[in-house]
Amino acid sequence: MSEFKQLKEITFEGNKKLGESGLVLLTWGNVSAFDAEKGVFAIKPSGVDYDTMTADDMVVLDLEGKVVEGTLRPSSDTKTHLELYKAYPQLGSVIHTHSKWATVWCQQMMDLPCMGTTHADFFYGTVPCTRAITQAELDEDYEMNTGKIIIETITERGIDPLEVPAILTGGHAPFVWGQTVDKALENSIVLERVAEMAWMNHLLNAQVPPLPQHILNKHYTRKHGKNAYYGQGNH
Amino acid sequence: MSEFKQLKEITFEGNKKLGESGLVLLTWGNVSAFDAEKGVFAIKPSGVDYDTMTADDMVVLDLEGKVVEGTLRPSSDTKTHLELYKAYPQLGSVIHTHSKWATVWCQQMMDLPCMGTTHADFFYGTVPCTRAITQAELDEDYEMNTGKIIIETITERGIDPLEVPAILTGGHAPFVWGQTVDKALENSIVLERVAEMAWMNHLLNAQVPPLPQHILNKHYTRKHGKNAYYGQGNH
Amino acid sequence: MSEFKQLKEITFEGNKKLGESGLVLLTWGNVSAFDAEKGVFAIKPSGVDYDTMTADDMVVLDLEGKVVEGTLRPSSDTKTHLELYKAYPQLGSVIHTHSKWATVWCQQMMDLPCMGTTHADFFYGTVPCTRAITQAELDEDYEMNTGKIIIETITERGIDPLEVPAILTGGHAPFVWGQTVDKALENSIVLERVAEMAWMNHLLNAQVPPLPQHILNKHYTRKHGKNAYYGQGNH
Amino acid sequence: MSEFKQLKEITFEGNKKLGESGLVLLTWGNVSAFDAEKGVFAIKPSGVDYDTMTADDMVVLDLEGKVVEGTLRPSSDTKTHLELYKAYPQLGSVIHTHSKWATVWCQQMMDLPCMGTTHADFFYGTVPCTRAITQAELDEDYEMNTGKIIIETITERGIDPLEVPAILTGGHAPFVWGQTVDKALENSIVLERVAEMAWMNHLLNAQVPPLPQHILNKHYTRKHGKNAYYGQGNH
Repeated sequence: MSEFKQLKEITFEGNKKLGESGLVLLTWGNVSAFDAEKGVFAIKPSGVDYDTMTADDMVVLDLEGKVVEGTLRPSSDTKTHLELYKAYPQLGSVIHTHSKWATVWCQQMMDLPCMGTTHADFFYGTVPCTRAITQAELDEDYEMNTGKIIIETITERGIDPLEVPAILTGGHAPFVWGQTVDKALENSIVLERVAEMAWMNHLLNAQVPPLPQHILNKHYTRKHGKNAYYGQGNH
Repeated sequence: MSEFKQLKEITFEGNKKLGESGLVLLTWGNVSAFDAEKGVFAIKPSGVDYDTMTADDMVVLDLEGKVVEGTLRPSSDTKTHLELYKAYPQLGSVIHTHSKWATVWCQQMMDLPCMGTTHADFFYGTVPCTRAITQAELDEDYEMNTGKIIIETITERGIDPLEVPAILTGGHAPFVWGQTVDKALENSIVLERVAEMAWMNHLLNAQVPPLPQHILNKHYTRKHGKNAYYGQGNH
Repeated sequence: MSEFKQLKEITFEGNKKLGESGLVLLTWGNVSAFDAEKGVFAIKPSGVDYDTMTADDMVVLDLEGKVVEGTLRPSSDTKTHLELYKAYPQLGSVIHTHSKWATVWCQQMMDLPCMGTTHADFFYGTVPCTRAITQAELDEDYEMNTGKIIIETITERGIDPLEVPAILTGGHAPFVWGQTVDKALENSIVLERVAEMAWMNHLLNAQVPPLPQHILNKHYTRKHGKNAYYGQGNH
Repeated sequence: MSEFKQLKEITFEGNKKLGESGLVLLTWGNVSAFDAEKGVFAIKPSGVDYDTMTADDMVVLDLEGKVVEGTLRPSSDTKTHLELYKAYPQLGSVIHTHSKWATVWCQQMMDLPCMGTTHADFFYGTVPCTRAITQAELDEDYEMNTGKIIIETITERGIDPLEVPAILTGGHAPFVWGQTVDKALENSIVLERVAEMAWMNHLLNAQVPPLPQHILNKHYTRKHGKNAYYGQGNH
């Protein structure tokens, strides 16, 4: 039996849930899950329907990008996931979608501002948008350099990737993550909703300032960190 | 058997209906119900899924905010509900959601104007938006002071809370109420729809004036008060 | 057995279909059907849920507005329907909804322009919006005068009500009709869709002119009148 | 047995899927399929419900527009499909809908720009909008000349119709195609989504430039042509 059975199972379940989430049209999205101890991640195969894929179709790769298990071609976005796991081994799962509202902010090359507590409950401030990839970067390796540009942006902004667990890639679409697949899925759902609300907001009046910093701090820390008091977890 | 069994049942049913209403994503909403005679209210526990909670999970508190029944932590918004019941014992139920259209008006710090008869049938004029909470108020007690700011706004505007059974909290999200859980749910659904339509309206032309006062009066009194002639109730 | 059994049945079926159409929230809509020979119409009772009503709940009235059969109170909008049947006995059914896109045009007090062939296939040109009702008209009889203002508008615009089978009442919501209940339902669905598309259109660029007259003529006559060649009807 | 049985079957299945796709209201859409070897195409009959039609209801025509099998009247748009198959025998299927977002761009007489990779994955650049049909063209033959204007536009723009498998007809609605019925359906779904996103985009900021050419090239060729590496097809 495969030593990656569990990793493939949770990756498969995550991709199935993504297919049912309303975030993806056709096959436009992929979930990967990372096992930091073994240094491998599993990812959806490229262009396969969410309805027909099986757990065994998931492709397992190591951190050099070599397939260590699986017969199908992995997602065309695999190298972007790979860069993220290499830079941030604390991520347990990465999700890529073309969810429409988040994607529109990408196409605008605009950061997604924190306009309210709904955003602050999940993302500690602005979700940044990367610059567009250059011709040279694209010619070298499109998907690898997409990952490197994400990391460049996170670094320049001084962000903890688990505090702002998403990024908008300029001209393209969002990447979202979390410590588990379920958390990454939740963050994907929330990103799409706050991207939608920020758009609605911006159309009413683009001059309205973002949520004041003290309310952002309060809402984020109400749900995260050692003083959190939302939910039953640390009751 | 619990003397609060019925109160917990209707609170549970209300939360379940809220979960099915399309108004909430994930666990972003809570319903409470108030028993004015006993001076207690029941509320959803914090961060628990609508699908898995049971009537016994509802938490019962008195008007000093003390839990009198229940083992789970109550909603993180409990103190806001508490302030409302203390100030307005005529409310039988309070609902908090992050329903997206109403929330956008909150984020804009804008009152929701009465643009048509659909609004006038349920809310007697403008639904006000509160000011943002200050750092000091937040440091003292975020949820309690959110309640106090709601009451401050209702008082300043000279509103009867049963005639305008909702408020937008600045930067945050709506609170809605009614004499019963079903009425508060109905008001939540209608608030969301009229917030959506006011947004659509505002984008077509933000200069269009609200509904003339005589039509507002007519529609509100057609459905409310001693001369109402809508429905079968006072036939 | 009631001599109005069939009329009540088709009215009931129409109201049920309206409830399932996505055009109405809660109980915000009513269908009536007219029997020109007998000079009576049946209409939904006021404030009754689409799910629980029965064919026997339908209320039958004559053209003087007298209830000739039924124990419930008829829709609060009954007198508006009555005025329409008195003025235009060629109408077999009238429907009132607060469908959101059409209602927004009402709230804007704006005519709905014919922006494309989708509109031209069903409505021969602009769907007019009436002026708002005055205080005096409202004090005299709100619902009757709503009907009279609709007729005033149709007359002033020189419209054949079967060629433009809908109207927007200023500040309020649409009334739609047709020779049969099914046709009136279809017109209600189409009105909502073209109101939505005209809104989307207007937001992209409010200066774009409506569909040229020669294309409007072509699309309308392709589906209506003696030279129609759409569908199998006159094959 | 009909020699066109298979062609009628796939046309029927395509029309059924179109009816379930969310792209059409009522009967506003039709799918045809072309058999280049036999020089015939099958198409939906005019005005027939997707729910009640059968494979035998499909009408088969030759490239002179003569019905070679079928008893119903073919879609009123048949001559437009015919012109497309005559000009581009490489098309295996043509679909016409009034899908709302794409139709709004038609009504605006605006080309649909490529704003991001979602568009670039399926359409190699701008989806053009044709000029409006003139009175003289309309009087001669509306549907035939609609086809001729589509071809005129594709020719003037120097487009390969399989690289940009859709067109917006000015004032009217989209026509979409592909080498198979399933591919034409997929292109119809994607056109609607990218038309929606371009609208959302345009409203945020109409000055944002389209996707840079090097990213457009990369995304299109990642999925199409001999160097494609998306999916399992040429693994």
